[in-house]
Amino acid sequence: MTTLKVAMIGYGFMGAAHSQGWRTAPRVFDLPAAPEMAVIVGRRPDAVAEAAQRWGWAESATDWREVVTRDDIDIVDIVTPGNSHAEIAVAALEAGKHVLCEKPLANTVAEATHMAEAAGRSAANGTLSMVGFTYRRVPAATFARDLVARGALGRVQQVRASYRQDWLVDSEAPLNWRLQKEHAGSGALGDIGAHAIDMVQFITGQWVQRVTGVVDTLVEERPLPAAAHGPADTQRGRVTVDDVAIFTGRLDSGALASFEATRYATGRKNALNVEISGERGAIVFDLEDLNTLWFYDRTAPEDQQGFTRILVTEPSHPYLSGWWPPGHLLGYEHGFSHQVKDLVTGIATGEPPHPSFADGLHVQRVLDAVERSAAQDAAWVGV
Amino acid sequence: MTTLKVAMIGYGFMGAAHSQGWRTAPRVFDLPAAPEMAVIVGRRPDAVAEAAQRWGWAESATDWREVVTRDDIDIVDIVTPGNSHAEIAVAALEAGKHVLCEKPLANTVAEATHMAEAAGRSAANGTLSMVGFTYRRVPAATFARDLVARGALGRVQQVRASYRQDWLVDSEAPLNWRLQKEHAGSGALGDIGAHAIDMVQFITGQWVQRVTGVVDTLVEERPLPAAAHGPADTQRGRVTVDDVAIFTGRLDSGALASFEATRYATGRKNALNVEISGERGAIVFDLEDLNTLWFYDRTAPEDQQGFTRILVTEPSHPYLSGWWPPGHLLGYEHGFSHQVKDLVTGIATGEPPHPSFADGLHVQRVLDAVERSAAQDAAWVGV
Amino acid sequence: MTTLKVAMIGYGFMGAAHSQGWRTAPRVFDLPAAPEMAVIVGRRPDAVAEAAQRWGWAESATDWREVVTRDDIDIVDIVTPGNSHAEIAVAALEAGKHVLCEKPLANTVAEATHMAEAAGRSAANGTLSMVGFTYRRVPAATFARDLVARGALGRVQQVRASYRQDWLVDSEAPLNWRLQKEHAGSGALGDIGAHAIDMVQFITGQWVQRVTGVVDTLVEERPLPAAAHGPADTQRGRVTVDDVAIFTGRLDSGALASFEATRYATGRKNALNVEISGERGAIVFDLEDLNTLWFYDRTAPEDQQGFTRILVTEPSHPYLSGWWPPGHLLGYEHGFSHQVKDLVTGIATGEPPHPSFADGLHVQRVLDAVERSAAQDAAWVGV
Amino acid sequence: MTTLKVAMIGYGFMGAAHSQGWRTAPRVFDLPAAPEMAVIVGRRPDAVAEAAQRWGWAESATDWREVVTRDDIDIVDIVTPGNSHAEIAVAALEAGKHVLCEKPLANTVAEATHMAEAAGRSAANGTLSMVGFTYRRVPAATFARDLVARGALGRVQQVRASYRQDWLVDSEAPLNWRLQKEHAGSGALGDIGAHAIDMVQFITGQWVQRVTGVVDTLVEERPLPAAAHGPADTQRGRVTVDDVAIFTGRLDSGALASFEATRYATGRKNALNVEISGERGAIVFDLEDLNTLWFYDRTAPEDQQGFTRILVTEPSHPYLSGWWPPGHLLGYEHGFSHQVKDLVTGIATGEPPHPSFADGLHVQRVLDAVERSAAQDAAWVGV
Repeated sequence: MTTLKVAMIGYGFMGAAHSQGWRTAPRVFDLPAAPEMAVIVGRRPDAVAEAAQRWGWAESATDWREVVTRDDIDIVDIVTPGNSHAEIAVAALEAGKHVLCEKPLANTVAEATHMAEAAGRSAANGTLSMVGFTYRRVPAATFARDLVARGALGRVQQVRASYRQDWLVDSEAPLNWRLQKEHAGSGALGDIGAHAIDMVQFITGQWVQRVTGVVDTLVEERPLPAAAHGPADTQRGRVTVDDVAIFTGRLDSGALASFEATRYATGRKNALNVEISGERGAIVFDLEDLNTLWFYDRTAPEDQQGFTRILVTEPSHPYLSGWWPPGHLLGYEHGFSHQVKDLVTGIATGEPPHPSFADGLHVQRVLDAVERSAAQDAAWVGV
Repeated sequence: MTTLKVAMIGYGFMGAAHSQGWRTAPRVFDLPAAPEMAVIVGRRPDAVAEAAQRWGWAESATDWREVVTRDDIDIVDIVTPGNSHAEIAVAALEAGKHVLCEKPLANTVAEATHMAEAAGRSAANGTLSMVGFTYRRVPAATFARDLVARGALGRVQQVRASYRQDWLVDSEAPLNWRLQKEHAGSGALGDIGAHAIDMVQFITGQWVQRVTGVVDTLVEERPLPAAAHGPADTQRGRVTVDDVAIFTGRLDSGALASFEATRYATGRKNALNVEISGERGAIVFDLEDLNTLWFYDRTAPEDQQGFTRILVTEPSHPYLSGWWPPGHLLGYEHGFSHQVKDLVTGIATGEPPHPSFADGLHVQRVLDAVERSAAQDAAWVGV
Repeated sequence: MTTLKVAMIGYGFMGAAHSQGWRTAPRVFDLPAAPEMAVIVGRRPDAVAEAAQRWGWAESATDWREVVTRDDIDIVDIVTPGNSHAEIAVAALEAGKHVLCEKPLANTVAEATHMAEAAGRSAANGTLSMVGFTYRRVPAATFARDLVARGALGRVQQVRASYRQDWLVDSEAPLNWRLQKEHAGSGALGDIGAHAIDMVQFITGQWVQRVTGVVDTLVEERPLPAAAHGPADTQRGRVTVDDVAIFTGRLDSGALASFEATRYATGRKNALNVEISGERGAIVFDLEDLNTLWFYDRTAPEDQQGFTRILVTEPSHPYLSGWWPPGHLLGYEHGFSHQVKDLVTGIATGEPPHPSFADGLHVQRVLDAVERSAAQDAAWVGV
Repeated sequence: MTTLKVAMIGYGFMGAAHSQGWRTAPRVFDLPAAPEMAVIVGRRPDAVAEAAQRWGWAESATDWREVVTRDDIDIVDIVTPGNSHAEIAVAALEAGKHVLCEKPLANTVAEATHMAEAAGRSAANGTLSMVGFTYRRVPAATFARDLVARGALGRVQQVRASYRQDWLVDSEAPLNWRLQKEHAGSGALGDIGAHAIDMVQFITGQWVQRVTGVVDTLVEERPLPAAAHGPADTQRGRVTVDDVAIFTGRLDSGALASFEATRYATGRKNALNVEISGERGAIVFDLEDLNTLWFYDRTAPEDQQGFTRILVTEPSHPYLSGWWPPGHLLGYEHGFSHQVKDLVTGIATGEPPHPSFADGLHVQRVLDAVERSAAQDAAWVGV
C-alpha cells in the first residue's frame, strides 16, 4: 500500500488533535493509503522535540521552509496561527505537496484569495488541498447535510445558527493573544462565528450572499495575564478584537439565516448550534451533544410529528462503520480521524475532498462582509 | 367584600382565555375583591349571546360605547383586534373604568401614545390600566425576573430571545386576516416579536434603546381561504405583513440582545425562548416547557456548575401557593388567572399593576423602530 | 339540554381539583348534558360552607346519607379518604345515582369487591360508575393508549413503570395521616403505585396477572407533626405503612413489567414514568412533563430512528380540540375536566365510561398481591 | 522511564477498544511508566497478524501460555470470552505478570473465586490485577462517586439502575453465541446487568448484600444465523440464557436498589442508567449521554433546587486535564485510556488500582444470587 508521509507545521492545541487523527484513522478505517507521521515542525527545538515524542512523530524540525520542500514529504498539515497560513500553504502547494490547513483559512480575504488561487493551480496537477472545518465531520453534522441533500427537509426556509462560549464572562479574565488583533485577526466572529457560517453553508449546500451585522467589544480593557485577578493597581491592556458578533445573512435561495457568536453566554462552553427549517422538515444540531441529531419530519402523520432525537451511532450513519456498536458515543476528536480518512481517500482516488480552499475563502469573505456591515451602520453588504 | 363588575369587549380566542381567568382566579386565590363576570360585548347578537352562555357571563350586549359608560361596570377588559384598542380603552378610562387591554397595546405608536397619555391622566384619579402581556405571569418567567432582581445573574451581558412558530411553513397555507396589514397592523414582528421584547424588558428590568433589523415576507402570495389547497387556478391574495423579523437591540446597560420572530420554524409551535446571560449566572426559559426554568449559577463550585432544571411548582415560587402540590404542572391559561389576581389586587390596594400602558407603548416603539431600521437598510435607529 | 345535578362528598385537595373539573368542562367542551354543581358535603358545617362558596357549589350539607338519596341529585362524586368509599358509593348506587369515586377504589380488596358488585348490579339499570384514575386522561397518556391500540408498538414485550416522589427524604419529616395504616390503608404502594399499575393496564390493554415484590419502611419512626424539626426530645410515632415498594408483574401476554413506588427519590416531585416497549415501537411518558409523549418508531428508516418528542397539543390529539392552539400547554387539572366530559357523555349516551369499578378492583387486587408476595419472601403470587 | 511491555490475549471487539487505550493513554497523560504494545495473541495466525498490523502491536503470537511466561512481558491484558479468563489470568499471575482482565471476571463464582485468590497471593509480591469495568472511568461516573464520597448526597436511601438495549426486540433476530449458555455463561444478566451492579457498588461504596429477582427468556427459539429472516422452514435453535433480568438488592446500609437488564427496550441502544438518591442530594447518570452528570442539591435554596446538568468536561473533573478544553466531549473509548492510566500508575507506585479481582468476584456473586433467587420463586438470597 502507498505510504503518505506527513509533515505537521505547528504544535499547539490543534497539533494534539491533528496528531490524534493521524495516529488513529489508519487503526479504525480501511484507508486506501497509509499516512505516516513523519515530521513535526516548530520554532523552539526542545519543545517541538518533546511534542514529537509525546504525540508520536518520527522526527522534529524547526524550519518549515526546508521541510515543505523535502522530497519524501507528501502531505503538509498546517496548525499554526492564522497569520502564517498563507505563506506556508502556498509554499507547500508550489512544492507539490497536498495541504491540509487548519481554519480559518487565513486572517484576511487577500491572503485567503491568494491561497485559493494557488490551490486552484495545484489542483490541475493533482495536488489537493483542504481546510480544517472539522465539525463538518461530526457524524451528526454530516448526516444533517445528507438529510438536506436527500430532500428530507424540502426547501430550506429559515436558518438559525450560533456559537456560544462563556470564557470572557468574567470581566477580569486576562488579556490573551486571542483578544489582540495583530495575532488573532478577529475575535469571536472569526474564531467561532466562522464555524457557524461553514456549518450552515455545508449543511444547506447554499452560500451566504449578503449580510447585515453588528460586532461589539463588551469589555474593552482586561488585565495583562500576570496581573489577572491581582491587586487593583494591576496593569491592563486593550482588547482589540470583537467579543460578540450578531449578524443576519441572505442565502442563495433568499432565505434568512441568523448568526450569533459570543463569549458571554454564561454556561455555554462550546455550544455550536444550528437549526435548519424546511418545508418538509427541520434539523437541530448542538456540538455540546454531538452524538445526537434532532430531526422533525413534517410528512409524518400529524399526531406523531415531533423532533426525533436520533442517536447518530448506527452503522448506517456517516463514519460510524469504523467505530463501536450502536449507542457507544464518539467525542470531539473523532472528527480529526474522519478528516484524515477523507483526505487520504481523496489523495488516493484523485477526488478532491471538501471543504476546499475556495470554501474556506468564501467563509472569509462572509466574515469580512460582517465587519464591513458593522462599520457602515449595519448596512447590508454583498459577500 | 367589594364586588368588581367586569365588561369584556370582544369574544374571539382571547375571550375564551380571559373568561377562564375571570372564572377561575377567585376560586384559587384569596382576592381582596370579588370580580363578577357581568357583560360580554360583541357585534353579532346571537354569537355574543352564545359566548356569554358558554363562558359564563351574566349578560351580553352589542354596543361597547354604551357598556363602557354603564354605572355598574368597574372594569373593562378589551380583547378585540388591535385596531380598536385605542378608541375603546380611552373611552373606558374617560368613563372612569379600570382597563385591561390585550396586547399589542395598539397597532401604531400614535394610538399607543394616546392610550398611555389617557392612562396617565386616569391614574391620577385612581383609575388603573394594564396591558395583557400574560406570559410575564407564567411562574417561571416571573421567577426569572425575581432571580435577576435579587442579583443571581449579576450584571446582564448578553440576551438571546426568539418566538418561533411554524404555521406558515406550507407555502399553500391560506391567507388569513393576520397576514393583512389593514387588520393585523404587523405580522410575526408585532404578534409574537412583541412578546419576546416584553419578556426581555420584564426579566432584565431594562429597556431596548436602539435597534437594527430586518423584516421579510418569504411567501408573498397565498391562496384565498376558500381556495387553499384547491386546484391550480385558485385565486390568490397578497401577504401585506412580514412573516419573519430578525433584529438586534441595545439595552440600557449597553448589552446586546438578539431577537427573532418567525412563522417558518418547522416543528416549533409556540416557542418563545429567552436566554439571559449575566456575570454571575444565566437563565433559559421556553414557553413550550413552561413549568421549567433553567438556571446556571456561576458562583457554584466549578465542578458542580451546570444548568439546573428548576421545576417551578414549589409553594415558594410565584403564584404557586394557590395551585397544586409540587410537581403538578400548570398550563397556558393559568397566566390569565394570575393576571386577574394582580389586577384585582391592584385595584383593591391602589397599587398600579404592571405592565402599564407606558410599558405597552415602549414595546410598540421598539416594533416601530425595527420597521424603520428595516426600511433604512438595517441602520441603527433609536426607539 | 338535560341538567345533571352533582353532589360532591368530601372537600380536601381532591375536592378543589374535582370542582375545577365540574366548573370548567362545560365551558370548554360541547357536552351532551349540563352538569350543575348542586351540593358539597362535609362534616364541619362552617368549613364545608366556606368550600362551597370558594369553589362555586350552590349549597353545602353535612349528612352524606341524606344527600345521596335526594331526588334532585343525579351524580355523586366521592372525594373522601379511601376508608369511606365503599359505604358511600354503594349507598349512592343503590339510590340510583351515577357515581364517580376517587382512587383508590377502596382500602381493601373486600370493600372494592363489594363496590364492583354493586356497580355491576346498577349498570343493568343504566346507573353508571367510574373510578377517578385521572392520569389516564392526560392527553399524552390517552394518546399512548391509542398508539398501542392502533398497533404502532406491535406486540408489547417489556414495561417499566415508576412513580417517584421525595417528600419523605428528610428523616425528620413529620408523621402525617398518609403514614398511618388505619387512615391510609397503604403507603407509597397504594397511593402512587396504584397509579402506575392503572396506567400500565390502561395503555397496554393488559392485566397484571402475577407479581413478586418487596415493600419497605425505610424510616420507621417520625416526629409527631407539632414536634417536627423540634428539639431532640420530641415525641415520635411509628410509620405503619410502606414508604417504598418495588415489584415485578407478569402481564397477560407473558411480558414482564417492573414497578417502583417511592418517596425517597430525591428531586422527583411527581414523577409517574411509564415506558412501554414493543416489537414495532416504544413510548415513554413522564407526568412531570405531561404535555409530551416520546414515541420510538422501529419501522422508520434505520438512520432516522430515535425517540420523537411529540408535543401533545395538536387538535388531532385526545381532548385537545376544546382547548388552545398547538404549542399551548395543559396542566395537571385538565384531566379533571376530561373526566367530567367523559362521565357526562357516558351518562347521556348510556355508554359506560372507563375506568370501571371492576378496573379499580383489579388495581386493588394487584396491590394486595404485592403485599402478600412481600410477606412471603417475595414469592410469585397470583392477582 | 521504565517501559512496561504488554501482551494482549484476544482480538475481538474489546481488543480494538483496549488497543485504542494502550495506544492513546501515553499520548495524552503524563504516565510514570511507558506501556509498549508488544504482542497480541490469538488462535488463528493470519487473523491475529492482521490485527497486530491494524492496531499497532509489534508482534503477534498464537500460544498464550508461552507468551504469558515470556521474561520480557510485564502486563497481560485478557480480552477473550469469559470462559477462558480464569485459566489465563491465574497462569499470568503465577508467572509474575500484572493482569488486566476484561469483565465479567469469569463465567462462574468458582472460577472467579479461584482468580481472586490468585490475585490475593500475587499482591503480596507486588503483582497487581484489575478487572475491566471500564464504565467506572467515564469521567461523569467517577465524578458521581466523588460526589457521594464527599458527602454531597448524604446518606444514600434509594438506588435505581438499569442497563437496557434493544437488539433482541425482533423475535427473528438470529441466535448468536451470546445467547448460548455454553459460550456466554449468562445473558442480559451477566453481560450488561454486571455493569449496573458494578456501577452501583462503585458509586455508592456499598455492597449488594441480598437479592430477590426474576430472569426470563422471552423468545426461546431463534433462527440459526444463516437462516435469519429467511423462509419459514428455516432451522431454529434454543436460546439458553436469559434475555431479561429484573432484581432488587439490599445494600449495606439497608437501602433498596432496583436493577433491570434487558434486550427488549425498544430504542435503547446502550442505556446504562444509574440514579442514586440520598438525604442531601441525588445523581443521575446515563451512558448514552456520557459527558453529562445530573446532580440534585437538596441543600440549595428551595426555589432554586432542580437537577443540574453538569457537562463533565472541566479541567477539575476526573481525567479531564489530559484532554480537550471545556465543552469538548469524550466518547466511549476514552475509558480505556483512563484504565491504562490507572493501571500503569498503580504499577509504578505499587498502589493497587480498582476494581480488584475481589470486586469482580463480588459482582459475580450478586449475579449468581440473582439466578438462585429466580430459581427459588424469587426468594431473597444472600450474596
